[in-house]
Amino acid sequence: MNAEIIAVGSELLSPTRVDTNSLYLTEQLNALGIEVVAKAVVGDDRPRLATLVKMAMERSELVFTTGGLGPTEDDVTREAVADALGRTLVFHPEIAQQIEERFRRAGRQMPAINRRQAFIIEGAQILTNDKGTAPGQWIEYAPGRVVVLLPGPPVELKSMYSRECAPRLQRLVPRQLIRTLHLRVAGMPESELDQLIAPVYRRYPQVATTVLAAPGDIQVILRARCATEEEAEALLQEIGPQIEALLGDRVYSRDGRSLEEVVGEMLVARNATVAVAESCTGGMVGARLTSVPGSSRYFVGGFLTYSDQMKWQLLGVSPEELAEFSSVSAPVARSMAEGARLRAGSTYAVSVTGIAGPEGGTPETPVGTVFIGIACPHDTYVQRYRFVGDRERVRQLATQAALDLLRRAIAGLPLEPAALTATDQLPQTPS
Amino acid sequence: MNAEIIAVGSELLSPTRVDTNSLYLTEQLNALGIEVVAKAVVGDDRPRLATLVKMAMERSELVFTTGGLGPTEDDVTREAVADALGRTLVFHPEIAQQIEERFRRAGRQMPAINRRQAFIIEGAQILTNDKGTAPGQWIEYAPGRVVVLLPGPPVELKSMYSRECAPRLQRLVPRQLIRTLHLRVAGMPESELDQLIAPVYRRYPQVATTVLAAPGDIQVILRARCATEEEAEALLQEIGPQIEALLGDRVYSRDGRSLEEVVGEMLVARNATVAVAESCTGGMVGARLTSVPGSSRYFVGGFLTYSDQMKWQLLGVSPEELAEFSSVSAPVARSMAEGARLRAGSTYAVSVTGIAGPEGGTPETPVGTVFIGIACPHDTYVQRYRFVGDRERVRQLATQAALDLLRRAIAGLPLEPAALTATDQLPQTPS
Repeated sequence: MNAEIIAVGSELLSPTRVDTNSLYLTEQLNALGIEVVAKAVVGDDRPRLATLVKMAMERSELVFTTGGLGPTEDDVTREAVADALGRTLVFHPEIAQQIEERFRRAGRQMPAINRRQAFIIEGAQILTNDKGTAPGQWIEYAPGRVVVLLPGPPVELKSMYSRECAPRLQRLVPRQLIRTLHLRVAGMPESELDQLIAPVYRRYPQVATTVLAAPGDIQVILRARCATEEEAEALLQEIGPQIEALLGDRVYSRDGRSLEEVVGEMLVARNATVAVAESCTGGMVGARLTSVPGSSRYFVGGFLTYSDQMKWQLLGVSPEELAEFSSVSAPVARSMAEGARLRAGSTYAVSVTGIAGPEGGTPETPVGTVFIGIACPHDTYVQRYRFVGDRERVRQLATQAALDLLRRAIAGLPLEPAALTATDQLPQTPS
Repeated sequence: MNAEIIAVGSELLSPTRVDTNSLYLTEQLNALGIEVVAKAVVGDDRPRLATLVKMAMERSELVFTTGGLGPTEDDVTREAVADALGRTLVFHPEIAQQIEERFRRAGRQMPAINRRQAFIIEGAQILTNDKGTAPGQWIEYAPGRVVVLLPGPPVELKSMYSRECAPRLQRLVPRQLIRTLHLRVAGMPESELDQLIAPVYRRYPQVATTVLAAPGDIQVILRARCATEEEAEALLQEIGPQIEALLGDRVYSRDGRSLEEVVGEMLVARNATVAVAESCTGGMVGARLTSVPGSSRYFVGGFLTYSDQMKWQLLGVSPEELAEFSSVSAPVARSMAEGARLRAGSTYAVSVTGIAGPEGGTPETPVGTVFIGIACPHDTYVQRYRFVGDRERVRQLATQAALDLLRRAIAGLPLEPAALTATDQLPQTPS
């Protein structure tokens, strides 16, 4: 079963606005085994929206619109969908009354324009809005074919979706059982990963494979959809190990958990704690570790030693060492990590020192050079990296590499991922 | 002049993939005075893509496709656009040779499938790709009406756009002069801001007003488009001050610069430095301050004091004070800030201590309670906040509030924005 999402509203056409409603709906629909085959964003344009809805209705069983259900004249979704369906809008006095009541409870009088929100497409089921004024609408215009109107504000949409849409969709969607394997991989570029695993997943057309890349972090989501749960599970048990064998210990999670969550659980399991000593990342490693609820169980704190003076003062990195090796070096990364571990009294400590750019590069240490140190009870490990990208990307890659190096150190894994197997001799397409 | 963007590629239909190419293109086009009136995302589906392109061509002068220019059979953009234009694809041997050469330089042989990338729509201008194999294409199929094919990988698209598209667009777009006022506002919810300024910008239909909201940060972008630069400037000089007067000192930037950039410049101008002492934000404030190139001029470093022990050990916050007031309190925020300022030897220090949630709230200090302290040479200021949202949102809002409080303290502004004027009595529509 396919779905399309049309987001209505000119503010969504801005260069910085991300359409989070579409992302949320796609996630919910995917979990029901529904594929989202197209998404669109359109302004408050009644004829264009009507055309888009009509086109979507022809191609997909489910069509969702978000937004455009407000009270103003720019809110044209109800009219446009009615046009696409060839139906009329009917005024529902009881809905107008509910809206009036909502205003009264807020100590106000309902503006006359809000009456527009009480117009419902004939034959539609009303989806109640418990966080706003606009009701949603669900029109099953043919058996198994639906147009759904949802409000724009994400808080209203999410509540309405889970209370009103999810139960209806579960009754509508053919009974299929889905099993999902959600791998997350660190320390490998997307092109290399895809080249490695594509020959495997292409052999399994009944498994939907999605590869999502973020800096230093790739998600491989395998969804097996079958008539029974056993079949789906068996399929995953076939394809999963093949893909994991190719990726080796780069895989840090098999259920979608993030790297900071995984590291946190490893520390809790060992009754261990960690501290950070950051220079060029300026707090990004600490920020990720503390994004996990309950991280106070294992995150003690850290030292942001941006200046050499602070490296000396807070961590005991000697001026002689700084002068001899410069702050971006393996010896200094080592001293930072060991100094942090000692002074924070933690089991482990992570240090990051590097050149994020755009300035500061030298022939010996060009922009993107980063040293990461992991101080452990009996050893300190230091790795050198060369990241490619602008300042923010170098910092993001360094943060991810620091968390992954910590994971490897805690787990006793090799500090560097194993060399790729002979399959990496496959002809490569330069991107 | 209007534009539409169609992004091709099933990976873009995933629940976590953000279509950054569309955001980038929209920003570039807006700066040229071109409005983006629709965006779409579609999978590797030749007939659907052809229909979408045809529809877009009817409505808008500029149609951009991104992606689908790879060598595989799933890469259908060239064929689909040719279908939409009713034109044929022509093989260009010299382009095939260039692609072969690119492979040779990487020490490889060009796979046969890459020949597909040498097919160009008849009549198209070729847009060179200096970061990948696929050339782009520019087809002016009627005077002033263009379809542009761009590659999917953002690095390739951005390079091709700036080298090949921007000059062509500048020749194509009617000569109009645009003056932009890009305000950025902290410490005000979007609904309040829009209610306040909408009565003003609605009186200026010739000024395109865009309001973009992020947690604790709102951008108000005013674009005046006229026949002469003087007219555009005069229009901005009329609307700008009216809007700024309503927003008062919540406005921190008038040219789009971020809060951390503005704070950085203020510190440089005063030859001053800053350190941070963070608890619940875990490094996010330091991370934002250091995202600015050259921040080592004013950012000394910081202390991530997640545990009470670290607050005592690194900042000298006394155990008695922690016991009496608890770590989330004004006295502790004050001691953290003063301790950081002293120990880092900086001019200013920012402290953040709060409850990000979901756990940890009490009746006196519910989840979302955050105290922010600013230690200055002659004074220390502490403000209490109550943020609403999940863990990440509370941390984002706290980080933004900390940077804004620092700005206010440095500039000698009131620590709290002035109360809204009588215009906030306008009838409000509950969302």
